[in-house]
Order: sequence, then C-alpha cells, then structure tokens
Amino acid sequence: MNTATPDHHLVPQATARTVPQALFDELRARFGTQFSVAPAVLEQHGRDESAFTVAPPDAVVFAESTLDVADAVKLAALYRTPVIPFGVGSSLEGHVLAVQGGISLDVSRMSRVLQIHAEDLTVTVQPGVTRKQLNEAVKSEGLFFPIDPGADASLGGMCATRASGTNAVRYGTMRENVLALEVVTASGEVIRTGSRAKKSSAGYDLTRLMVGSEGTLGVITEITLKLYPLPEAVMAASCSFASLSDAVNTTMQIIQMGVPIARCELLDGNTVGMVNRHSKLTLPETPLLLMEFHGSPDGVKEQVQTVQAIAAEHSGNQFEWALTPEERTRLWTARHNAYFAGQQSKPGCRVISTDTCVPISRLADALLDCVDEANAAGIPYFLVGHVGDGNFHMGYLINPDQPQERVMAEELNTKLVQRALALGGTCSGEHGVGLHKMDFLLSEAGAGAVDMMRAIKRALDPHSILNPGKIFSR
Amino acid sequence: MNTATPDHHLVPQATARTVPQALFDELRARFGTQFSVAPAVLEQHGRDESAFTVAPPDAVVFAESTLDVADAVKLAALYRTPVIPFGVGSSLEGHVLAVQGGISLDVSRMSRVLQIHAEDLTVTVQPGVTRKQLNEAVKSEGLFFPIDPGADASLGGMCATRASGTNAVRYGTMRENVLALEVVTASGEVIRTGSRAKKSSAGYDLTRLMVGSEGTLGVITEITLKLYPLPEAVMAASCSFASLSDAVNTTMQIIQMGVPIARCELLDGNTVGMVNRHSKLTLPETPLLLMEFHGSPDGVKEQVQTVQAIAAEHSGNQFEWALTPEERTRLWTARHNAYFAGQQSKPGCRVISTDTCVPISRLADALLDCVDEANAAGIPYFLVGHVGDGNFHMGYLINPDQPQERVMAEELNTKLVQRALALGGTCSGEHGVGLHKMDFLLSEAGAGAVDMMRAIKRALDPHSILNPGKIFSR
Repeated sequence: MNTATPDHHLVPQATARTVPQALFDELRARFGTQFSVAPAVLEQHGRDESAFTVAPPDAVVFAESTLDVADAVKLAALYRTPVIPFGVGSSLEGHVLAVQGGISLDVSRMSRVLQIHAEDLTVTVQPGVTRKQLNEAVKSEGLFFPIDPGADASLGGMCATRASGTNAVRYGTMRENVLALEVVTASGEVIRTGSRAKKSSAGYDLTRLMVGSEGTLGVITEITLKLYPLPEAVMAASCSFASLSDAVNTTMQIIQMGVPIARCELLDGNTVGMVNRHSKLTLPETPLLLMEFHGSPDGVKEQVQTVQAIAAEHSGNQFEWALTPEERTRLWTARHNAYFAGQQSKPGCRVISTDTCVPISRLADALLDCVDEANAAGIPYFLVGHVGDGNFHMGYLINPDQPQERVMAEELNTKLVQRALALGGTCSGEHGVGLHKMDFLLSEAGAGAVDMMRAIKRALDPHSILNPGKIFSR
Repeated sequence: MNTATPDHHLVPQATARTVPQALFDELRARFGTQFSVAPAVLEQHGRDESAFTVAPPDAVVFAESTLDVADAVKLAALYRTPVIPFGVGSSLEGHVLAVQGGISLDVSRMSRVLQIHAEDLTVTVQPGVTRKQLNEAVKSEGLFFPIDPGADASLGGMCATRASGTNAVRYGTMRENVLALEVVTASGEVIRTGSRAKKSSAGYDLTRLMVGSEGTLGVITEITLKLYPLPEAVMAASCSFASLSDAVNTTMQIIQMGVPIARCELLDGNTVGMVNRHSKLTLPETPLLLMEFHGSPDGVKEQVQTVQAIAAEHSGNQFEWALTPEERTRLWTARHNAYFAGQQSKPGCRVISTDTCVPISRLADALLDCVDEANAAGIPYFLVGHVGDGNFHMGYLINPDQPQERVMAEELNTKLVQRALALGGTCSGEHGVGLHKMDFLLSEAGAGAVDMMRAIKRALDPHSILNPGKIFSR
C-alpha cells in the first residue's frame, strides 16, 4: 500500500497478535469440518463491502449453535486470541476485518427462525437469519419485519451495527425493534438480555448496549424482534423535482407535519442515471423522492393527499405510481441497488460511503454543500438518502490503485462530518464506526463519553478479544 | 421495626457510611444556602411514594446548574460518600432513600426548558422540569410530550427509571423518547451522550444505558427529548364490561389488530368504585377500559369503529364519550388519581405496588389469577393497568403497623412476578428495581446478566458513590 493513504485505511498489522498453534489444534479437535484455514475461506472472511484492504483472519469457525459459539469464545479467551463475529459480510465500515488477526466466528449457519409469536407480534431468530429470510417466514402470518438496510444482511449483523434503512422513518431502527438477545460474553458465558415484554424497567438496558456494539462486547446468538401486521394498504410513488433543495425541503415539511410516511428516499439526478442504467429503468434523471405509504385505505389516501400538496408547493412533478406489488418491488430493488449501480458506473472502483444524520430542519444545510463540494472536486459519487430521518449517503467512487482519490474522498467525508456535527448531528446514522469513523466518534461524543465506552469495553472484555481494533482508535 | 417484615423493607443501616465532617464543611462553603441539614429537609428527601420506611440523607444539596452537580459529585467522590439524585420524590420503589446515608442531590431547581426546536420535534430540558411543565412550555408550538406516568414526575426521574405510563402503547417509553443526555459521571466529569439526530450508530448507546440506570451510573443534568405534533383529533371514551376477562381480551385483540390506540387503561370494578368516591364520578363499578384515540378526524373514526366492534364481541357496553377537552382531563385525572383513591379507601395505609409486564397474548393469564389470589387473601387492593402494553399494577393497601399485611402483600407480589416471568414477561414494566425488586431482577435476568450489570457499575462508579444499594442486592 502507498503510504500516502490515510492511516486508517491500512490494516494495523503492527498490532496483529500471533495465534498459538495449540489453539488451532484445539479448535480443529472441537469443530472438525466446521473449522477452516483454507486461504479462500480466510480471504472471504477478511473483507466486506467497504474500501478497506482485505485483512483475513487466521482461521474460521462455522458455528452451528450457541454452544459452538460459547466453546469457540472460551478457547479464544484461553489463548487471548481475537474473535470476530461474521454474518454475511455486508458491513460498509470494515467491521469483519481481522485487523489484529484471530478467529472469524461465522454464524451464517445459525439460520433458524426459532419461534414466531404472531399473537404477540414477536419473533425469535438465530443471528444468521437474513432479513429477507425472516420476512418470508412470517409473511403467511400476515406480519413483516420492517428494518431494511438494502443489503440482505444477517439480523445478527444488523443488531451489531444498529442498522436501519428505508423504513426507519416510520418503524424506527434496530434500537427500537430488538426486544431481547442471547449473547455469549467474552468469557464464553451465555446470558439473556430482556424478555418478550414490550417494555421493561428491570435493570440496565443490556439489550440496547449490545445493539450497536459491533461485536466488541459479546457475540449475539439469539434475537427477539418486534413484528408488525402487514399494512392493509400500501402505495408507492416517485416524484421528481427541479432541484435537490426542492426535494429536501419537501421531505422536511412532510416530517414536520407528522405524516406517518413509511419510506422517503432521495436520489440525486446523477444517481438516478446510474440506477436507470443498472436496473434498466427510465426514471427522469432529476432529483427524485421515492415514497411509500402504509395504513388503512383511507389513511393512505389522506397521507398521499397531504404529501402531494407539499410536493406541489416545492415544484414537485406529478407522482408516478408503482401500482402493483411487482412494480413496487422493482422500484425498491432499484433503490437498493443504487450502491451497485454506482460501483458499476466506474468499473473496478471501491466505494467510500458517508453516513451522517442530522436533525431534519438542518438536512438542506447538511446535504447541499456536500454535493457542491463533490462536484467541485470532480470525484464521481452517488447520493442516496433516508432523508425522512435526516440521514444520507454520499458514495465516493474511488480507484483503489489511485491513492490520491482515496485522500480526496476522505477529505470530502471529513468536511461533511464536521458540518453534520456542527448542525447537531451524528457521524453515523446506521453503518456504525468500525475501522472508519473512530476519529469522527471522538469528535462527536467527546473524550469523556468515549472514555466511558472504553471503560465498559474493558469491564466486559478485559483481554480485548472481542472484535478488537474497532470503534476505538487507541 | 418489627423483624417479621421482609428484609428488603428495612433500611440496611449496617452498610450506612459515615459522612466526614470535612465534607459537610466543604459543601457548606461551596453551596451556602443551597446546602441543608435541617431535619425536615432531610426527612423530606428520605421518602418517596413507596411503602419503605424513611431513610434520610445526611445532607441535601440543592443544585441549580450542571456545575453545581459536578462540584457536589466531585466532593462526594473525594470523600467516597454516597450521592442520591432527587427530583420530586415520586418513585414507587424507594429510589431516593439514602439507605447508605450520604448527600441527597436535589435537582428540582434545575427546572428550565432550555431549547425548543419545534422544527425538529425536539426539546432540551433540565432534569427538574416536570412533564406537566414541559407540556405547558411546548403547547403553543402545537407540540406535546406524550410520556405520562400519572404523577407530575421530573423528567430526570422519568429518565432514571425508564418511565412510561398511559400513552406508551402508542408513543413508547422514555427508552424510545430520549435522544440525548448530559450526565455528570462518578468522578464529576460532564459528558454528553447522543445528539439531536433521530438515529445514530456512533458507538455504544450510552443514552439507553443511562435511561433506567436509577441514578447508579451518573447524574442526569440535561435531557433532549422527542416531541410530537398535537393530534388533529382526539377522542376519549370509557367502556364497561361484564367481566375482567372480557376487558382484557378486548385489549389483546385491539393490539393484535395493530390499532394505533393512544391509551388503553384497565380498572377493575373495585378500583372504579374507589375512583368514583375520590373523584366524585359515577362510572359503572364494573371492569372498565379507558381509551383515547389520536389522529386525523377520519383516522380516529376508523380506529373507534374497529375498537367498538371488538368490544361488542366481548360484551362491552356502549362507549361513554368524554367529548370536551375538560371532560377528557377529568377522566384522565381520575385515572391518574387511582393511586390516591386507593390509599384514601383505607386511611393510613401504604401501597405496595406491583409492576409486571407480559407479552400481550399472556395478559389474561398474568392478570386474572392475581385478582383471585388477592381476593382469596382478603387484602384490599386497587388494580390499574396500561394493558395495551401488557403492564398492570396491583396496589396492595397495607397497614404499616401490621407487619403481617406487608408479608402477605409481598407473598402475593412474589407469586405474581413468578407467574409473569414464566409467561415471558418482566418484573418491572416502568417503576424500576430500586430497593424492592433486586431479587426479582436476579430471577428475571439471571446471575450472568446481573453480573454484567454489576461489572458496568464497577467500571463507571468504582467507589460505588452513585445511589448505592439500589438495583443490586449485594
């Protein structure tokens, strides 16, 4: 790697720990064919969707049960060796990279939906279940799980990063939708956080502490989630605008009016073009809002009327309706593929994704200058946003062989984060800190709060074996 | 006290620490008239609404700013003396009792609404602001804060106990409605958790860790909350039923249908009688649901039609409407005063309140047997419930001079909690653990999870000066 790239894009090899042969032997004896050191397997477990260089683990254990996870962690603890939980590898922030070496603990085979309590609107799953798999499993009960980060991520990974996505504006994030967890601690003990009760004041909120802890405080082995009745009526539409600020101001007003919109997604014209080419659509290549409304037939009509009036005030065009479920799926698949559409627009590129989230009234202030800055820098990018939440992503498309592009993208990212923090926002709406936002976290939370996080990390993982090197820069 | 009362109703004087005279001197020098050791002041700060005997602190500091809190905590830390945050003293679980002596840190004078961001639906307040005061302050903006535990509690106290109340079925609890906090740590440092962004994945969720930590991890000095637009239409009604199980089954079906009901409260016939006598009402003295619906005029009509149909299927009578805002206020005030109505029904009594919360489908199983058991025991009680959340309270009315009544109430409570835990529920829906539910917490969460909570406590408060003796029994 070229030394001109920022430090945090290099795997900090200096801190990699040596895995003793005895641990390999014990893991092989315990796990047999569930244990692998095959180079292709290591390579696959050392990368994600981020722009970081691959950092393969020393070995991979394919856990098939909570007991497997507990035993693997106990052995790793014995030898003070890092353990990195792995779901499907869809992180955008380097979460699964084995930056200090160690064991990748792949939970993708823990993919059973354990209990559907339709009458309570709850479900308990293993961490390797993906969101699409979960929705297939509960559909026949007339229920769905709304959190939709785009990728068909594992629910364990979604817990670990406190994921959200397109439906969060109405249904909240993983923070609001996880009721309880089973977790293997750093010593290999199995604990439960929370119950199936909808609310509780019984002690510290360990569930919320684990959600978003990025595998650094425990390995999630079971998840109890809220479900929702499938809405009686669903309508989805796109609306194009003459300018980004019109689209953003429309969004701000929708939220301020309290419209319970289910999805409110922004793409700039440039990104609509990428999506058209990738998904063979013919959307107008101007700033675009993609919206979805859930409710009773009358309730949905009411929402649509309100939003149409707001859009019209901001020179929004007529709504284009996705009338059938198939058309809706096509629309949202196209939106979800914006990331890949962006990547495809510059062959061989990697994406450096930003993730700021600001109070809704500051969205225009946060977003419009970033676009101008990217255009001025001449770097290609895509722009998508869960704008109803004040959250948007610039995806800078960099050539990994051109270190200067990475530097430029990170400079733009830094400006963008500084602006969001000054506006009362956060550096990460939903992707997590990982390897990428450690310094941003420090700027955002302050040294005192980060010290408190570190104190918790030390208390729960004294030998720092759980996904070390993430969240904290030192 | 009589030794026949259960241990946890006695103040554990054995562990009380001696407060050195030097600390008194330093506090007096720093705080002047904001410092008090007047017996009446100490007495007032050593009691709450629980049935525990008074445990006065050794001194009271009336903080007027974050700096006051930080300085008081720093001095207490220096002398390893307990600090017990105090709001308005409306806890039901002994949270503010100085069971190990020390300094009561009264934040009720920190009662400023600091920033209303109407355009973002957020507000920042000091911890001594009460919920009614907050709602007065934001009303003119067309906004409201829904969390309503009945008492006009301080928002600091509501954070500390993860409070909820009548509107939680639609709007969630303090867990879902606190965006960010300013907290003074055990060393007297001021940190901030969270931002004004609606969602964030930036590091551990310190906000949710502090919410519900009962003053044992930090002293809350500023709170940023979500607000909601005042609903366009509000309708409130009562509906009486032939039996408790009819009322409970109606509730279960309302929730399972996904009706976005704003309030759904149960009183048994016995409690309606108490309320009638206390609030001079003439409600039918049979099991009663009090309901409120929020939304657009059409949306509210839709909800009401659905709920009326469900109630009719379970032999519910015609809805009695509270048509004007004044009538609505009268109805909800009567509901909120159920606690005092219960107390008044047995002069001189104290209330031992239960607080279990179960998955909605198990509500009948959790509730009906408790009523039979209380009737069989012959102990007077009131029964109120935030039944839309699966949460209900039996308030056993005991004569504090009759230890046997306390024993009987606690035996009933224990059975009730065991039943709720077996049904997948929690021992505390909203009151917290305090001095009262330590053993229940252990049964519910398990030793491993409680050990994790303790490890966090030790990490953040190594000398155990922050509200010691609460949550953990050892």
